[in-house]
Amino acid sequence: MFLQALAAKAETIDAALDRYLRQASENPPVIHEAMRYSVFAGGKRLRPALTLAAAQAVGAPERLVLPAACAIELIHTYSLIHDDLPAMDNDDLRRGKPTNHRVFGEAVALLAGSALFALAFEVLAGCRRDGGLAAERILAVVEEVAAACGTAGLIGGQALDVVSVSRTVSEAELEAVHRAKTGALFRAAVRAGAVLGGASPVQLERLTVFAEHFGLAFQITDDILDVTGYAEQTGKAVGSDARNRKHTYVSVCGLEAARRRGAESSAAALAALEEFGPEADFLRQAAEFIVSREF
Amino acid sequence: MFLQALAAKAETIDAALDRYLRQASENPPVIHEAMRYSVFAGGKRLRPALTLAAAQAVGAPERLVLPAACAIELIHTYSLIHDDLPAMDNDDLRRGKPTNHRVFGEAVALLAGSALFALAFEVLAGCRRDGGLAAERILAVVEEVAAACGTAGLIGGQALDVVSVSRTVSEAELEAVHRAKTGALFRAAVRAGAVLGGASPVQLERLTVFAEHFGLAFQITDDILDVTGYAEQTGKAVGSDARNRKHTYVSVCGLEAARRRGAESSAAALAALEEFGPEADFLRQAAEFIVSREF
Repeated sequence: MFLQALAAKAETIDAALDRYLRQASENPPVIHEAMRYSVFAGGKRLRPALTLAAAQAVGAPERLVLPAACAIELIHTYSLIHDDLPAMDNDDLRRGKPTNHRVFGEAVALLAGSALFALAFEVLAGCRRDGGLAAERILAVVEEVAAACGTAGLIGGQALDVVSVSRTVSEAELEAVHRAKTGALFRAAVRAGAVLGGASPVQLERLTVFAEHFGLAFQITDDILDVTGYAEQTGKAVGSDARNRKHTYVSVCGLEAARRRGAESSAAALAALEEFGPEADFLRQAAEFIVSREF
Repeated sequence: MFLQALAAKAETIDAALDRYLRQASENPPVIHEAMRYSVFAGGKRLRPALTLAAAQAVGAPERLVLPAACAIELIHTYSLIHDDLPAMDNDDLRRGKPTNHRVFGEAVALLAGSALFALAFEVLAGCRRDGGLAAERILAVVEEVAAACGTAGLIGGQALDVVSVSRTVSEAELEAVHRAKTGALFRAAVRAGAVLGGASPVQLERLTVFAEHFGLAFQITDDILDVTGYAEQTGKAVGSDARNRKHTYVSVCGLEAARRRGAESSAAALAALEEFGPEADFLRQAAEFIVSREF
């Protein structure tokens, strides 16, 4: 049921992403091919769906925040392309397909990633022309999304990961990595939808708590699946974290404790939605799904 | 005289950049070290100085556009770090110092560049809190700066450069590369200052023409200096374009024609400023300086 609802949102998001990528300049074609290759490589659109759902949870229509949702997915795709590069994780497969640099070469992959990053902010700022959104609110979201991409978010998490590869870490340190590396973008995705959708301060606060627990539950499950999953389902080689000497919840806490922590985070995410009505059902289903998924 | 005026503006910009970089999160330290290393590697701050000067040309105080000027310089620094990477130009020296990846390694250099890119948008959007600027105007600048970083600007120019390395190009194609690769950011730098400074439509149009000719004059002179300059002055190895099989105005048009084209562009930039009073003198001096410089 959740997967059906997610697929419906993904369809809306895909159509909008296709439009934005067509609007971009055509020269030279290879860079646009590379951008499209990774944007349409089978992502489930979980992050942008959360943006749409957060807006709905506060009573706003999803089309109002569709550009912001697309911006979040463009940033997610940029971060995957750059993370896979030889200088970083040097991965050959992503979602069961050759990674961007394996197809287009390192130079084009690097540029395609950065172009998606730039396009995200162009799309986000451009949504002021759609009408219905105050410039002040959009600007607050630009600032927050940018911060989530910087050293307090995505980049900081990656950097912590890079420097901690060769030493042992505590569970608290691991959580700091993941709060930055995956958590910050989930948080920004949900808050972008909430802020643009006109959330009250209390609603925004509750949705932020939801997003933080959700991100943690997502990451813990990701770590578990890297050990217990099947390559066909996760789309990447099983055990790749261990081979890359990455710290995971499983390697730091053990499988049992990781499962327990995942379930706790999912429950905490659900609890944060208590005051919301049925318009937050997508978010509720997402919090339940995220720890039970097999891919 | 111009260099003195530029140095005064550079001092203001450096102090602001230092503040912004201090505000960023501290964890892990290596990424901040790498960011600061390249931001404070001796750049002349020409692009952000143009942002300040464009605001002054339309009667606005420079402090109003200081965050935007810093954002432009952060983006410029990000693009230099990524351009120097082994997958791109594989340069060892930049402004006479080892390039970022030679000091910090490829992974950290890649991340530091992206962190500066993200910080640029955070700083730009954050300037709404300084007061004095309408959110609508800042948002227009966010969109324009982002577009200048994407496939219609920096990235498009780099990509054109990458795909044209092994074939001959016409002068028109070369100009398209440079209009994107270096021109777009000069254009965005000037227009950001003008838009935020409250330029009239006619003023904005004239300053845009100025910026386009200025960017061309800058690039042509850069190409000439790569052939005729001294490593101690340009801070990079002379002849590096030829070694990287890069097309330049000198390789495509010859040295004489390149000098003539440079002088024409400088004159056209100056002509675009005719309707402005003495408050545009910095821009005038810049247009004269840019083709006579020896570094």
